[in-house]
Amino acid sequence: MSGSLTIVGLGPGTPDWITPAAQTALDAATDLVGYGPYLDRIPEREGRTKHASDNRVEVERAGHALALAAEGKRVAVVSGGDPGVFAMAAAVFEALEAGPEAWRAIPVTVEPGITAMLAAAARAGAPLGGDFCAISLSDNLKPWEVVTARLAAVLAADLVICLYNPISKARPWQLGKALELACQHRDAATPVLFARAVGRPDEALRILTLAEAAAQAGTADMATLVMIGASSTRLIARESAAPYVYTPRSVASSPCVTSQGRT
Amino acid sequence: MSGSLTIVGLGPGTPDWITPAAQTALDAATDLVGYGPYLDRIPEREGRTKHASDNRVEVERAGHALALAAEGKRVAVVSGGDPGVFAMAAAVFEALEAGPEAWRAIPVTVEPGITAMLAAAARAGAPLGGDFCAISLSDNLKPWEVVTARLAAVLAADLVICLYNPISKARPWQLGKALELACQHRDAATPVLFARAVGRPDEALRILTLAEAAAQAGTADMATLVMIGASSTRLIARESAAPYVYTPRSVASSPCVTSQGRT
Repeated sequence: MSGSLTIVGLGPGTPDWITPAAQTALDAATDLVGYGPYLDRIPEREGRTKHASDNRVEVERAGHALALAAEGKRVAVVSGGDPGVFAMAAAVFEALEAGPEAWRAIPVTVEPGITAMLAAAARAGAPLGGDFCAISLSDNLKPWEVVTARLAAVLAADLVICLYNPISKARPWQLGKALELACQHRDAATPVLFARAVGRPDEALRILTLAEAAAQAGTADMATLVMIGASSTRLIARESAAPYVYTPRSVASSPCVTSQGRT
Repeated sequence: MSGSLTIVGLGPGTPDWITPAAQTALDAATDLVGYGPYLDRIPEREGRTKHASDNRVEVERAGHALALAAEGKRVAVVSGGDPGVFAMAAAVFEALEAGPEAWRAIPVTVEPGITAMLAAAARAGAPLGGDFCAISLSDNLKPWEVVTARLAAVLAADLVICLYNPISKARPWQLGKALELACQHRDAATPVLFARAVGRPDEALRILTLAEAAAQAGTADMATLVMIGASSTRLIARESAAPYVYTPRSVASSPCVTSQGRT
């Protein structure tokens, strides 16, 4: 078998953020598999076939890609951001684990990319300057009580929190609940970012207070990365430009040592 | 003032992982400021001056870069990995906040890069398939009891844990303590990665059990990214190749809901 499979991260949107290694992997592929809008970012080329699919069939899409590789194709599974962060890489390994033994002989590699939280942080300043976490707010793949237990833990531990998949038409209330929970642990003035479509033409970065964010949760959408600051996250004001948002690297003492949240 | 400052992420090491946007920022700079080994990765060029510094003077280095920009230079502060993740971006904003008012007129931008945990995850498979966190194990900038309180919280919440700055000559015992703490919360067979110098010629990826990792903490070094799997993280065996490591996207129920650790 001469086939292979590479899971390629395109980054958040602009071609300027696609690594040369990712570009090389795309150029070498005979078959591109992915969600339609990601495939649309890649030019058509003779001898390279695009296999577009819907957004919500990750494991089926992964199985299709593995089957093509098993036939001898050089397959690139195309992912937004970084493939390993709430994207296609885990789905491919789930399909591989559950699939035919022969699939384990396929060389599978992953090409990393700029994930949304890094792009959003870069635009804002340095909000990830301290310890941080990335949590998917979707309760499609885990119970909501797991989401809230994890949020409570990282809020008490004073990590900066990056929320992926914050809201969708089918999940309209979860982000509001998450931000209400954050209000029980962090000051109402804590900076919160709503970073929408960073790296794409419709990019929009909003810097809110936690209280404002909780009140305006419905203004986020599927393309938004929500970042909740730690207790030390703060703004540096500028004339005629949005403030920078940053989290100092130093921690004098931690709320999680002395208390489990505000009351 | 026509000066500017860009904080540029070079990624983990290989030029193949430097984004075109980061390359453009380096090409446009009149002055490069950074830790010597990072500057050594960038070719000499007429009309571009390199200002190398030691590893442990981040805020002084940042102040020097801002002063050059205030003089009208186009400055690129060079950072390994992503500048926003335990690297130079927060140091620049700390220096900016504490510095002269005039510095706030300098246009400061950040060019994101591939951070070590994304590179390590890509090499291993998809260990970051679920919720995860990034914690610096250094107690130079925060008390050790803050580090352990945060570790206990994210262990109980069953996040995958990426440890930056795990060990150094001046901090020889912290990684062992952290892995011992992990043993109190997670099964001894939980996969742990020691991912050393990913993307560089001396790259070495080791897949251990948690028990092995705790016993071999001293074999990690400053160039190692340590990743502790969640309770669901597992291996997919292959013939004549290292196993893949991955974390399924789904969570049936969470240890943190029902208990605060194993006993």
